[in-house]
Amino acid sequence: MSEQDRTSTQHALEALPLRENLRGLTPYGAPQLDVPVMLNTNENTHPVPEEVVAAVTASVAEAAATLNRYPDREFTVLRQRLAKYLGHGLSETNLWAANGSNEVLQQILQAFGGPGRTVLSFPPTYSMYPLLASGTDTEYLAGQRAEDFSLTAESAAAQVREHRPNLTILCSPNNPTGTALGLDVVEAVYEAASESHGMVIVDEAYAEFALAGTESALSLLPGRPRLIVTRTMSKAFALAGARLGYLAAAPEVTDALRLVRLPYHLSAVSQATANAALQHVEVLLQNVEDIKAQRDRIVDELRALGLSPAVSDSNFVFFGGLEDAHATWQGLLDHGVLVRDVGIPGHLRVTAGTEAETTAFLTALRQVLGR
Amino acid sequence: MSEQDRTSTQHALEALPLRENLRGLTPYGAPQLDVPVMLNTNENTHPVPEEVVAAVTASVAEAAATLNRYPDREFTVLRQRLAKYLGHGLSETNLWAANGSNEVLQQILQAFGGPGRTVLSFPPTYSMYPLLASGTDTEYLAGQRAEDFSLTAESAAAQVREHRPNLTILCSPNNPTGTALGLDVVEAVYEAASESHGMVIVDEAYAEFALAGTESALSLLPGRPRLIVTRTMSKAFALAGARLGYLAAAPEVTDALRLVRLPYHLSAVSQATANAALQHVEVLLQNVEDIKAQRDRIVDELRALGLSPAVSDSNFVFFGGLEDAHATWQGLLDHGVLVRDVGIPGHLRVTAGTEAETTAFLTALRQVLGR
Repeated sequence: MSEQDRTSTQHALEALPLRENLRGLTPYGAPQLDVPVMLNTNENTHPVPEEVVAAVTASVAEAAATLNRYPDREFTVLRQRLAKYLGHGLSETNLWAANGSNEVLQQILQAFGGPGRTVLSFPPTYSMYPLLASGTDTEYLAGQRAEDFSLTAESAAAQVREHRPNLTILCSPNNPTGTALGLDVVEAVYEAASESHGMVIVDEAYAEFALAGTESALSLLPGRPRLIVTRTMSKAFALAGARLGYLAAAPEVTDALRLVRLPYHLSAVSQATANAALQHVEVLLQNVEDIKAQRDRIVDELRALGLSPAVSDSNFVFFGGLEDAHATWQGLLDHGVLVRDVGIPGHLRVTAGTEAETTAFLTALRQVLGR
Repeated sequence: MSEQDRTSTQHALEALPLRENLRGLTPYGAPQLDVPVMLNTNENTHPVPEEVVAAVTASVAEAAATLNRYPDREFTVLRQRLAKYLGHGLSETNLWAANGSNEVLQQILQAFGGPGRTVLSFPPTYSMYPLLASGTDTEYLAGQRAEDFSLTAESAAAQVREHRPNLTILCSPNNPTGTALGLDVVEAVYEAASESHGMVIVDEAYAEFALAGTESALSLLPGRPRLIVTRTMSKAFALAGARLGYLAAAPEVTDALRLVRLPYHLSAVSQATANAALQHVEVLLQNVEDIKAQRDRIVDELRALGLSPAVSDSNFVFFGGLEDAHATWQGLLDHGVLVRDVGIPGHLRVTAGTEAETTAFLTALRQVLGR
């Protein structure tokens, strides 16, 4: 699109009766560039195993014959299989799913947020939280982290007591920093939030990549009816294209979401895809150990280069110590490696890819930094 | 679920910090009963043609290999194919799609509705409009129709001038009554809405079933930047399970929706399914003429029974003249035929199915009414 076309489109957009809080905004999204090594959106860069492709194809072929009918509104089989995968004594009554964890979070905000209500999270964190808040007219409150981006139980709970938010979102492992929170933080936040009857969401999109000893908040669900743990099939399961996010919570939370979900929100094709994939969990997760090894390799090599990578429980590494992060980002791109500039001075974020992609990134980085 | 379990779940739900406007609500949805003849949700009851099942399967098989990557956020191929299908000189810049036309409408309300804003439609009409309004905190205004459920250009425009809504939704053909609006109504409403800079949406979910001579509002798009025409692949295309709704409008309208859509809202599998189906439009639409013939047969036979069917441009028939609509609904169900009780005294709505299903419905109705 030419600059002139862009300007004329922007003028036409501004002539529409847009909501006030959307005026002047530009759409969210990482740049979609065509580059040999794409390490910018924390995808699983390992191809989907052939066995899973075959199972998904067979499952969709079966579903396709009855696509003239609406899908199972309750996606019961999917909830059963997700519960089985998560374990922790969960059943399908604890499970819910939607088109990506963004839609799961949007539904949570539609049910428990909205005008006159607030949601607290702790930047730098997943950049969609404030956008989801805006989209549901929930006031977004930006909490504080320590200078090294850590968050202690004491600090988080104190901030919850101060703001009394209707919802608190803890991203663990946190995006973009990659570090998981201890369960003591979740427990303290839940206790503090309970004083004002607030919901607590732990976004565990990257949970499967956690370091040994890092525990999931799923173990905290019993006896905590206002705790929600969200997950996704996009990352460890290598199914970003399938858009399947889900959550585990008390059964009444899933009932609350039934009040705001659009009817038949999960297509028969989405259900067929996820149902098939969940019959092959072992093979889908086989690349997780490889990715963790590459992630640890990146951390080690960045340290050796004199940079400051954060502890990573995820499939990406956030690192500081750069003089000019944007120039480094551009330099890497010139070498065919796309990483993410998350807008934090001196820092970049890189997804742990295959061994070859990781090597390409590290080689390019050494050249760009002249080390 | 036992009555006791239901009560205890309801109590648990009420203990959660739900938004005020959701308290006491129960989830939307037609009953999902397992009955031989399902004519209650205006699905296309003809099975998906084998040729289309094969094409969808092949397309998804190809997409499955790269499901580890996020899908094309701009679903460009899909927008191109939808534009080609609609004709009217439209290009992909005019097209937008989402997971069902419910999500399309939700995005429109997120972009142009919201707190302090209003949306007008004319009940009896699609029952999701007030729910979508509530879900986006847009105030819902219920307009008036004539006693026979018709809506003239004069009346509709006068009501728009009176209420000055931010959005007006015209359902044409209207659900549940089945009758299309003349383009004079759309023109008059657009003109009236323009005085207060309001958006006008024409929901044409059932457009492909229109009677000869009924025109689509697509022809009115040129020069009307605040007009939106929504469509779906659920009905004529027999793909309700694929959840693919779409719209045509000025390019700046699609830009507005880019501000509110969730990133990657349309999965690679959904795109692959719709893209494949749109390569087989002719065979997909081949059942439309059969359905229209059954629809006309229902209208004729109901008239012969002394009932009052509305003029239908859709794949269903709305009919009055029943002494006790709910008793008739139950009687039909006892004969294995499920139709829709839309809550209007003396009236029911029935989907035009295959010839055999239509015969089953008419036979059962004669028995239930003792005629």
